[in-house]
Amino acid sequence: MATVPTQPQFLPDGGVTSPRGWQAGARYVGIKRYGTEPRLDLGLLWSERLATAAGVFTRNKVCGAPVAVCRENLADGRAHALVANSGCSNVAMGARGLEDARRMAAITAARLHVSADQVLVASTGVIARPLPMPVIEQGIGEIELTDDGGASFARAIMTTDTVSKERAIRFSVGGQSYVVGGTAKGSGMVHPDMATVFCFLTTDAPIAPSWIAPLLKDTADRSINMTDVDMDTSTSDTMLLLANGAAGGELLSGGEPLGVAFQQALMDVAIELSRDLCRDGEGAETLIEVVVKGASSESDARRAARCIASSPLVKTMITGKDANLGRVLMALGRSGAQLDVESVGIWIGEHEAFHSGTPTELDLKTISDTMRQSEVRVTVELGLGGHQATAWGCDLTEGYIRINADYTT
Amino acid sequence: MATVPTQPQFLPDGGVTSPRGWQAGARYVGIKRYGTEPRLDLGLLWSERLATAAGVFTRNKVCGAPVAVCRENLADGRAHALVANSGCSNVAMGARGLEDARRMAAITAARLHVSADQVLVASTGVIARPLPMPVIEQGIGEIELTDDGGASFARAIMTTDTVSKERAIRFSVGGQSYVVGGTAKGSGMVHPDMATVFCFLTTDAPIAPSWIAPLLKDTADRSINMTDVDMDTSTSDTMLLLANGAAGGELLSGGEPLGVAFQQALMDVAIELSRDLCRDGEGAETLIEVVVKGASSESDARRAARCIASSPLVKTMITGKDANLGRVLMALGRSGAQLDVESVGIWIGEHEAFHSGTPTELDLKTISDTMRQSEVRVTVELGLGGHQATAWGCDLTEGYIRINADYTT
Repeated sequence: MATVPTQPQFLPDGGVTSPRGWQAGARYVGIKRYGTEPRLDLGLLWSERLATAAGVFTRNKVCGAPVAVCRENLADGRAHALVANSGCSNVAMGARGLEDARRMAAITAARLHVSADQVLVASTGVIARPLPMPVIEQGIGEIELTDDGGASFARAIMTTDTVSKERAIRFSVGGQSYVVGGTAKGSGMVHPDMATVFCFLTTDAPIAPSWIAPLLKDTADRSINMTDVDMDTSTSDTMLLLANGAAGGELLSGGEPLGVAFQQALMDVAIELSRDLCRDGEGAETLIEVVVKGASSESDARRAARCIASSPLVKTMITGKDANLGRVLMALGRSGAQLDVESVGIWIGEHEAFHSGTPTELDLKTISDTMRQSEVRVTVELGLGGHQATAWGCDLTEGYIRINADYTT
Repeated sequence: MATVPTQPQFLPDGGVTSPRGWQAGARYVGIKRYGTEPRLDLGLLWSERLATAAGVFTRNKVCGAPVAVCRENLADGRAHALVANSGCSNVAMGARGLEDARRMAAITAARLHVSADQVLVASTGVIARPLPMPVIEQGIGEIELTDDGGASFARAIMTTDTVSKERAIRFSVGGQSYVVGGTAKGSGMVHPDMATVFCFLTTDAPIAPSWIAPLLKDTADRSINMTDVDMDTSTSDTMLLLANGAAGGELLSGGEPLGVAFQQALMDVAIELSRDLCRDGEGAETLIEVVVKGASSESDARRAARCIASSPLVKTMITGKDANLGRVLMALGRSGAQLDVESVGIWIGEHEAFHSGTPTELDLKTISDTMRQSEVRVTVELGLGGHQATAWGCDLTEGYIRINADYTT
């Protein structure tokens, strides 16, 4: 039973419809009015089998009506479908917003012959504008659901994203194979107006209802929650895991070998999507990966890694390929993590730039050249304990300013 | 005795040498090697009368050697002089850094015939590079101290600042007049490499030694500590208050009328310097003032105001004159302040843009036009209590990216 799992394999062109039993589709209905041409702005994701489901949402105290409706409809841990739109976030619209989000669920439920509380809702885009309900209602009825509709769905949730983000992985244990698929959007850790983070994960594995929520929380904490583009937290951030069990087999739970293998595959997908998000951060040219080791607690490691990955001065250091690694030390110092400056080492790529808290003899050109890669890794050794964390960010460029300043409502 | 004080008056061209008994001077000694022409990089500030003194410093766990030396030398609450340089921050240089900072104090003390622990030290500029001690030692001996040397001193502490910041205010009570002078530098809330925040305040008032530290702390908390350019915290931030008592009269203490009048004048100078800093933030074109009212505690009001003033998305909204005031709501939501969305009002200038948490009918062009001023005020009414706070920031422009990315060490 507890056979050694095969090495998980990413599927080419995989996405949310790669796992068995998932269908999706999308349409342009006219919500996303900016840009030069019609782009898909309404998507539907569907499993005929009722899926076990969990969600992780924004911690922003101002949160969108769709987030509230997802929370309500996930109370029983089950879902059949997700309806999502871009172009309008349905945030700060009071009672009307809540009514519109519930209506999106109800219309979708009616079309699919399920109950409204089995439909989840996600909206991203401009804040404080009403959803154009008539075109959305009509669109929901017209979307064609197909087995390879994942790519269209992924495009329908894009805002300032320049590419859609999709991943899927397959792994097998003892003759039983499972697929985890996912899509994400977001071009800032968040920009409430244009770049809320969504990450939707599907699978055909049968996940124990008691395990799905802690599993997703843990996955989020080590993937999406460790990304940063611009330090702002969206009012609509939504991460969902939907497991329809179409692969068959026994229920997967944490702790046992099959569950552990599944968790690793899920984490692989979530981390790749997190990296995809940062690589496509607004204006980004470089993916930054920050690994903090030797921390005295995991929370310290996480705090330090995130603080470095989100520092505007570390970001602009990478933008300028400028060997100012004192900026990493500065960000570390303000992170709040326990610190003994004299035991800190800092590496840029493979090169040690700080040793025992002071600069090494490493020449600045080597550091600069290392920063010219499309992906730059900064490693910090705190020398205090055995805990480690990884965070992802991107450089901060004039492109970010242009996207966020020049876009006019 | 407790006569009503006259309205305090800002002095034209006032600065740190405006109060009686203060002299200053500066030289170019070759520390600041960037830029196209020699710019003053070493300054000296001096009072023949031993001054009562206090300091407030960076909370960054990585802090510069000069900060450590200031802390040591302020242990007795007294100082005669301050030696400051730009171009090199003397941070992350280990034992050598501490030795160099102490040596700057000792050389200055020898020249001025006082003891080394009566000299304070401040350095700002590139991190993790050694101070060029020979030229500094020679320069300290050559600086000419004059009664109107404040302007040179103010220029000697500039890094990416485009203008020097100086303010002085005079007020009188019952025939006795006092002057508070100050200078500040910093073009980011901080940039550890180029834009540490310094704020040095002098006065000829006699301040009670028991009062000076809490007085400065309170002043810092409502002025410099409420500014933001880029969310990064310098390893060298230093704010000092030096009171030589040259004006004569009785010792000033908190709570009594003279003390209250003095505190207000001090706050006026510190706030104007804070606004000067933000107005000259790296790449800044617009000063942003955020007033949060109706908070249920002062710490909530401060947290909310700072979070809004430091949000990249609020900043770029002002850069782009884009009427996306949902971004203010987003920043408020992530601030951690207690919040009831349905009671939130938001004003841009004099115009109410959100009422009861939802957008008003105010047209977007009015909002946009209000953002075209050189100074934009955002007011938030939380409707929960009687507490209020003000924070200052600046817009985030392509100029910020250019300054921080294109500068090469």
